[in-house]
Amino acid sequence: MENFALDLSTKIIFGKDSEEKVGEEIKNYSEKVLLHYGGGSIKRTGLYEKVVKSLKKSSVEFVELGGVVPNPRLSLVREGIELCRKENIDFILAVGGGSVIDSAKAIAAGVPYKGDVWDFFEKKARIREAIPVATILTISAAGSEMSPSMVITDEKSRRKLSGRSDLIRPVFSILNPELTFTLPKEQVAYGAVDMFAHIVERYFTSTKNVDVTDEMCEAVMRSIIMNAKKAVADLEDYNAQAELMWGGTVAHNGILGAGREEDWSSHRIEHELSAAYDIAHGAGLAVIVPAWMAYVYKHDVRRFARYARNVFHVLDEDDEKAALSGIEETNKFFSSLGLSTTMKGLGIGEENIGKMSKLCAGKDGIGFFVKLDAEDIEKIYRLALD
Amino acid sequence: MENFALDLSTKIIFGKDSEEKVGEEIKNYSEKVLLHYGGGSIKRTGLYEKVVKSLKKSSVEFVELGGVVPNPRLSLVREGIELCRKENIDFILAVGGGSVIDSAKAIAAGVPYKGDVWDFFEKKARIREAIPVATILTISAAGSEMSPSMVITDEKSRRKLSGRSDLIRPVFSILNPELTFTLPKEQVAYGAVDMFAHIVERYFTSTKNVDVTDEMCEAVMRSIIMNAKKAVADLEDYNAQAELMWGGTVAHNGILGAGREEDWSSHRIEHELSAAYDIAHGAGLAVIVPAWMAYVYKHDVRRFARYARNVFHVLDEDDEKAALSGIEETNKFFSSLGLSTTMKGLGIGEENIGKMSKLCAGKDGIGFFVKLDAEDIEKIYRLALD
Repeated sequence: MENFALDLSTKIIFGKDSEEKVGEEIKNYSEKVLLHYGGGSIKRTGLYEKVVKSLKKSSVEFVELGGVVPNPRLSLVREGIELCRKENIDFILAVGGGSVIDSAKAIAAGVPYKGDVWDFFEKKARIREAIPVATILTISAAGSEMSPSMVITDEKSRRKLSGRSDLIRPVFSILNPELTFTLPKEQVAYGAVDMFAHIVERYFTSTKNVDVTDEMCEAVMRSIIMNAKKAVADLEDYNAQAELMWGGTVAHNGILGAGREEDWSSHRIEHELSAAYDIAHGAGLAVIVPAWMAYVYKHDVRRFARYARNVFHVLDEDDEKAALSGIEETNKFFSSLGLSTTMKGLGIGEENIGKMSKLCAGKDGIGFFVKLDAEDIEKIYRLALD
Repeated sequence: MENFALDLSTKIIFGKDSEEKVGEEIKNYSEKVLLHYGGGSIKRTGLYEKVVKSLKKSSVEFVELGGVVPNPRLSLVREGIELCRKENIDFILAVGGGSVIDSAKAIAAGVPYKGDVWDFFEKKARIREAIPVATILTISAAGSEMSPSMVITDEKSRRKLSGRSDLIRPVFSILNPELTFTLPKEQVAYGAVDMFAHIVERYFTSTKNVDVTDEMCEAVMRSIIMNAKKAVADLEDYNAQAELMWGGTVAHNGILGAGREEDWSSHRIEHELSAAYDIAHGAGLAVIVPAWMAYVYKHDVRRFARYARNVFHVLDEDDEKAALSGIEETNKFFSSLGLSTTMKGLGIGEENIGKMSKLCAGKDGIGFFVKLDAEDIEKIYRLALD
């Protein structure tokens, strides 16, 4: 096991009607907040009204900034930063999914920073201060509600980059599974793939002797598989949606990476895909994760065999065969949620593969479990093609 | 799944040499601390010197209070409260195991409180304020390093009572598995039983549909079983001790109880035993947990069968047989660590059973998975006798 530091300081308020507590919780931090959200679905579902009512009840003033889109845009982040400065806002409430939360985190880091917020993503500057962020989660997927990370897309350069700091970890997150009942089925499926992939990135590691973490990774992966199928079959299955919501939070808050090196290649490879084609992150991962697995499994066949046996109950005693079955089962799991596992299935051809591979690899390549250069990444895109 | 709130805000600093960071971490909170410890083993092992060096390097002043014993005493807590007030101390560093940490938490809650600290344990008052506590853990067991709870013994009345508040959750905990290498073998075994029991108390619940939590409970129980055996066989097995240290922390920080009712009868029944006989808490639990299981399993045979299959790999298809095998395996696990699983093995007879049962049951009885009155508790003690 490796040395680690872990800060899980986001307070979780989980369950039915929990959004009604938002005003009294915020009151501990701020009297004037930015209410940040997406395309207006929170108005259609009635959530907006409940939030506003709770804020008013606790005498919390708010200024609104809606309009966050999937693969959240740098331009809106900059607009949010200006708005917070102008209005003297010292707290951001994100109501939505990972995109809204990531946009809120970027604004939070940008407000006290003298330079341009994109510096944090291009690694030209480190986050040294941020105003607090809290969330009301409406999509189980990204895990951003308890994570120290964020992903923003610069729509001009079409670059999708990530940033991280414990300073942008939400101070509290409100998780009411009922808020996910109105999502389209494919959103639930994308979310399940995203959280599953967050564990895959941590599970495939070269660090030995991390039993507690290994066992917990497998535990949450099994739960996600079982409950994703139930939730897609019945969108209003509270228990299934609750398990997905909590599973997605645990998947990405850091506890499943404790004591080990993580990989993150699949995410990096997918980010190029969704930056170039503006597809949903979960849709891209359903394509990239199995291709990444097929490309790297020979690096540690026993690890992949363990994955197959402990996550998918594969019984094959031969490690090579078990490993391949595990990858096949991963494909089947994603397909069972109604998702395509090929780029062609998403209507994406090979036209950008060379360019995406080079952008993704950068100067230094990616990955820790298996180090990948542009050539490797190109091969993974080609494996994902059809 | 039930609604829940979860605050995991203790920052974890885990690994080799991590105790050297204590000064710079404390510096973020305080310039003058109470250094609280036990019987002086930290001086023999050299840990005391390292801590003092780190505090001095960061210009953190300290006042010492040693002398904490297992089943930590109310009298020392009161002494600590007076000392902190007299010396204007606003931070407590606990260096030791669960007893030292619990003693530190009680002092932390007592310092700003006008009344007597025992009020918090007799439930005559609620903790509304506390000075911060941090820990350097030297025994993997109690989980107090990331928990909101504490157990203190009033040596005059021989009552052992617990208190809890998120306000006494340590602000940071330093976990270096190497610090456990000098423990006697039986301490390691007691610790493993204690952390295992913390999961048992959460795992046996009447709440349905808590998959993620169930799976994670089983995951950590399996890891504890495997690594406890390794650590007892080789006290300096870093990886095994690391898994126990992290497993013990996860076992009791609250994440394994998320979304469900917990039980806590075994702990309550054991507390009377260790209050009356001053035995180690883990030694008492090794006796009480299997007896409690044998008494209550018929309440939910399927749950106990699942426990047997998923934690001990019992293959029996008949639920009743599997359940009984699981209880037997629990006994065997504790025995394999060199521990007695009967009261007689600890030199305890039936002389106090009636009195302990009544004290334990109080007016309202105990337990949530299965509600127990004094008569039930007496039967459990008798099952544990030999």
